[in-house]
Amino acid sequence: MDVGVIGLGAMGSSLALRLVKAGDKVRVWNRSRGPVDKLAREGAIGVERPQEALQGEAALTMLADDDAIAAVLLDGGALENARRGLVHVVTATISVDFAKRLEKIHTQLGLGYVAAPVLGRPDVAAAGGLNVLAAGDAAHVHRVQPLLDAIGKQTWVVGTAPHQANVVKIAANFALASAIEVMAESIALARRHDVDPRKLIEVFTGTLFAAPAYKVYGPAILEGKFETAGFRLALGLKDVRLALTASEKSGAPLPFAGILRDNFVDAMAHGDGNKDWAAVSKVALRRAGLE
Amino acid sequence: MDVGVIGLGAMGSSLALRLVKAGDKVRVWNRSRGPVDKLAREGAIGVERPQEALQGEAALTMLADDDAIAAVLLDGGALENARRGLVHVVTATISVDFAKRLEKIHTQLGLGYVAAPVLGRPDVAAAGGLNVLAAGDAAHVHRVQPLLDAIGKQTWVVGTAPHQANVVKIAANFALASAIEVMAESIALARRHDVDPRKLIEVFTGTLFAAPAYKVYGPAILEGKFETAGFRLALGLKDVRLALTASEKSGAPLPFAGILRDNFVDAMAHGDGNKDWAAVSKVALRRAGLE
Amino acid sequence: MDVGVIGLGAMGSSLALRLVKAGDKVRVWNRSRGPVDKLAREGAIGVERPQEALQGEAALTMLADDDAIAAVLLDGGALENARRGLVHVVTATISVDFAKRLEKIHTQLGLGYVAAPVLGRPDVAAAGGLNVLAAGDAAHVHRVQPLLDAIGKQTWVVGTAPHQANVVKIAANFALASAIEVMAESIALARRHDVDPRKLIEVFTGTLFAAPAYKVYGPAILEGKFETAGFRLALGLKDVRLALTASEKSGAPLPFAGILRDNFVDAMAHGDGNKDWAAVSKVALRRAGLE
Amino acid sequence: MDVGVIGLGAMGSSLALRLVKAGDKVRVWNRSRGPVDKLAREGAIGVERPQEALQGEAALTMLADDDAIAAVLLDGGALENARRGLVHVVTATISVDFAKRLEKIHTQLGLGYVAAPVLGRPDVAAAGGLNVLAAGDAAHVHRVQPLLDAIGKQTWVVGTAPHQANVVKIAANFALASAIEVMAESIALARRHDVDPRKLIEVFTGTLFAAPAYKVYGPAILEGKFETAGFRLALGLKDVRLALTASEKSGAPLPFAGILRDNFVDAMAHGDGNKDWAAVSKVALRRAGLE
Repeated sequence: MDVGVIGLGAMGSSLALRLVKAGDKVRVWNRSRGPVDKLAREGAIGVERPQEALQGEAALTMLADDDAIAAVLLDGGALENARRGLVHVVTATISVDFAKRLEKIHTQLGLGYVAAPVLGRPDVAAAGGLNVLAAGDAAHVHRVQPLLDAIGKQTWVVGTAPHQANVVKIAANFALASAIEVMAESIALARRHDVDPRKLIEVFTGTLFAAPAYKVYGPAILEGKFETAGFRLALGLKDVRLALTASEKSGAPLPFAGILRDNFVDAMAHGDGNKDWAAVSKVALRRAGLE
Repeated sequence: MDVGVIGLGAMGSSLALRLVKAGDKVRVWNRSRGPVDKLAREGAIGVERPQEALQGEAALTMLADDDAIAAVLLDGGALENARRGLVHVVTATISVDFAKRLEKIHTQLGLGYVAAPVLGRPDVAAAGGLNVLAAGDAAHVHRVQPLLDAIGKQTWVVGTAPHQANVVKIAANFALASAIEVMAESIALARRHDVDPRKLIEVFTGTLFAAPAYKVYGPAILEGKFETAGFRLALGLKDVRLALTASEKSGAPLPFAGILRDNFVDAMAHGDGNKDWAAVSKVALRRAGLE
Repeated sequence: MDVGVIGLGAMGSSLALRLVKAGDKVRVWNRSRGPVDKLAREGAIGVERPQEALQGEAALTMLADDDAIAAVLLDGGALENARRGLVHVVTATISVDFAKRLEKIHTQLGLGYVAAPVLGRPDVAAAGGLNVLAAGDAAHVHRVQPLLDAIGKQTWVVGTAPHQANVVKIAANFALASAIEVMAESIALARRHDVDPRKLIEVFTGTLFAAPAYKVYGPAILEGKFETAGFRLALGLKDVRLALTASEKSGAPLPFAGILRDNFVDAMAHGDGNKDWAAVSKVALRRAGLE
Repeated sequence: MDVGVIGLGAMGSSLALRLVKAGDKVRVWNRSRGPVDKLAREGAIGVERPQEALQGEAALTMLADDDAIAAVLLDGGALENARRGLVHVVTATISVDFAKRLEKIHTQLGLGYVAAPVLGRPDVAAAGGLNVLAAGDAAHVHRVQPLLDAIGKQTWVVGTAPHQANVVKIAANFALASAIEVMAESIALARRHDVDPRKLIEVFTGTLFAAPAYKVYGPAILEGKFETAGFRLALGLKDVRLALTASEKSGAPLPFAGILRDNFVDAMAHGDGNKDWAAVSKVALRRAGLE
């Protein structure tokens, strides 16, 4: 396959490398030159401008958010100069409005567009265990399935309009933050009653809540070490905001997200913005006088 | 074992029957006579007054709440007339304050007291799949372990003070109601964006939230049939109130429980008090104009 | 008028004294003897048991809450031994359920019952500036109007069923706590933007919010001195709980009260339960990292 | 005074007319031509481009929001072409971030900038009763004081950095929406207890809450007629969002604003976006089953 990769962070670089090793022709672009050169030494084709990575059958954009994508692909005309017929896969967790805007632009330019945000932290990604939430025209999704397979262990096709994958991703992160919050509140309640919080989490993760969301974050909250950020708290607030914005634009109240918002703001005000987002659990403990 | 069972609802009756069949000497009492007679025909010893069921080595009380226990065991002096040395197992989801009061009374009377609330709906109970959350003096718990084994498939000992098991149970139900709420809000958000909510729940239960709480209630919410109440919504509100009361008494804010409270009140005001508590999900949909 | 006064705290004593000076025959009772003796020296008739204060045309009970009233008037049979035809005025902020129970009991005993909770802090009471919220049978209210006039500067008759006055009182305190909260949140927002919070409160109290609730509590919050409790924070939480209970029993969600509840619990957990309830404003500042 | 007025809605037109009648030289600009011609017939100088209204000593911009100001004054270069030394008064309720951006731009261009959002509905404006919240360099505020006097009955100078006035305005609208909400919740609670809600509002506005916020909106909520929008509900949501954004950017949680947000979203989802924002009160009633 002749494919481009734009955005060579940890995930983008590792993916590009995997594609090169699988024998694909891979053009890579990044804002800073370092990762490009490194991949070039492995057999990828380093390009100077983003549009050059958009001249194959497909391309993957692994940038952070709305602004980064707009800056790299729209402002400089990169997307306008993409090869007609290219299918463009965007993995970023972006706003629903921006996803809809991208849908329109791709259609106008004769490009395919598949949204493919992923579920999973860096360590899961490194182990090839990501879940890919994909949405887009069925033919487009089919075309890029090999790329999606290279990204994660499983693809969940959630709709034919790309923004639908972003909605599901936003909801999943909202539910994940809610799981963290409910454990934090429960732990505060337990500690205030002299219940060993490890017993509580043991019960949760051994019975009703025996799922990754709880098994990953329950022990993390108990441990209370948030210095190594798998996902930064400030980005967690960004994702809660994406949920609230989607809520406002569409007309669906999200009262839990309102509570989460305040707690993330509280955590930011206490200097925890760069810690792992599970540090938001400190708010429930602090409010209970336990910190 | 020489054991009493007080409260012969579905769970109490089925447990008593199991004990009889296992060869135990089982004295049974119930407010209404029907279930007593039925069990007597199976080999249990029907008794007239609750204290008569408290004359063996151990007894199990399977009543609904604080008030029922106070009425049956305290007001008429039944507990005062229990055999010294008896270990009393109480499975009800009761308030932390009442549990502490029971602790004191049992100690004063020279009785053992083990709190053993359970996790699981009637169908899980029927299949022997309950999880038992137990707390109490280690020797007492050890003595009644055969009874706990008869109740559920697994016992989780969470502490040595009985009320600690009630705290964990209250927290678990709070977390369960929160899982229902987060799915309801997410489904409202999805539907408002023309995302198939079944896809959303499929992703949730297939990835981060692959646990009973979500697998049981996700499809139930999608289905929207709440007429057969595994757990009545009005009782759900009672349990949220137990969490809020424990929060107030101990000094641990529980903002998610505040949101839940309002939604349960909203659901009650719309006539859904006797439906299954997953019907609280209708509130999120109604507020989004989707009902 | 031949009248009894039960409960001789600051407000009860000062009222009894005023009645004595106005020439009424006043029987007084209090749990502790001190205030009784003091008033007896001024011309009141000190009595030994509460029912002796219930033998005139009317009686005023100025006790703290549901429990105090039940202990003094119900448990010992005082109310049962009241003179038939007596009209009983109760000023306490009690729960709606207890007010309804009192309604029934009074009717059964052939007694009149007027609920008359008051609005106003001790300094307002001392200056004779209280507002009395009254409800009850019109003839009963008419009979005790002189007493109500002795309590406050103005009587607001809000209904013919006594508990209705309690509902209005509960709502007024809920609205008052909400005004404190909205000022606290606004001050936190202002300070985080380097706006002088005194300017903010000056605008609030000089324009849209030029009313006692804001003029009393705005400067108090700015000042930040809560040691002298006009109204204790722990009692404020009790009143928020009365609102929440009324909400649950009647089917009216109160989302603002849910937020207030958590903030009062937070304040209690930080040791401010005995401070003035305006100290709940510290929560908003603390959460914004401003304390 | 030689002054420009940009944005000739009801408020802008009436202000320009007042200035003309007071003998000022008034240049007027509006996106549509109608109001310009009308004012020209009264003696104002109609201009073709916004920058022509920025050639005097001072100018007033009375546009709706961030976007309108950016479109009219920034995108086309109008502000860049303003006369050096001009003091520019902006009355819009804009975001704090945009206000800060305007501060920088004005400083760079050698222009004065005074933020002067107003408090008051159209009928208050028509009666000359607006309150003006002003912030900016003291000399600049002094220079435009005659204009501020022409806008409202009183000017409240809240700081020397223009955005500070926007913060106070955002907080005031947040407090106003909260007052509406607290009355709505209280009315729902009262009605659920068969208390006449008019009695409740009579007590509120006659005692603790005897201020415009309650006196204007209390009767409006009771009346339930929201068809004539003094302030559209959709704009109310915009203002709540301004508060939430200011909260997030600065680090001050605003839990009441979270509740308001959900209720405004709920009201929008039920088709009330174009009604007066007091229609948000219908949410509390609907949730209590009262609609």
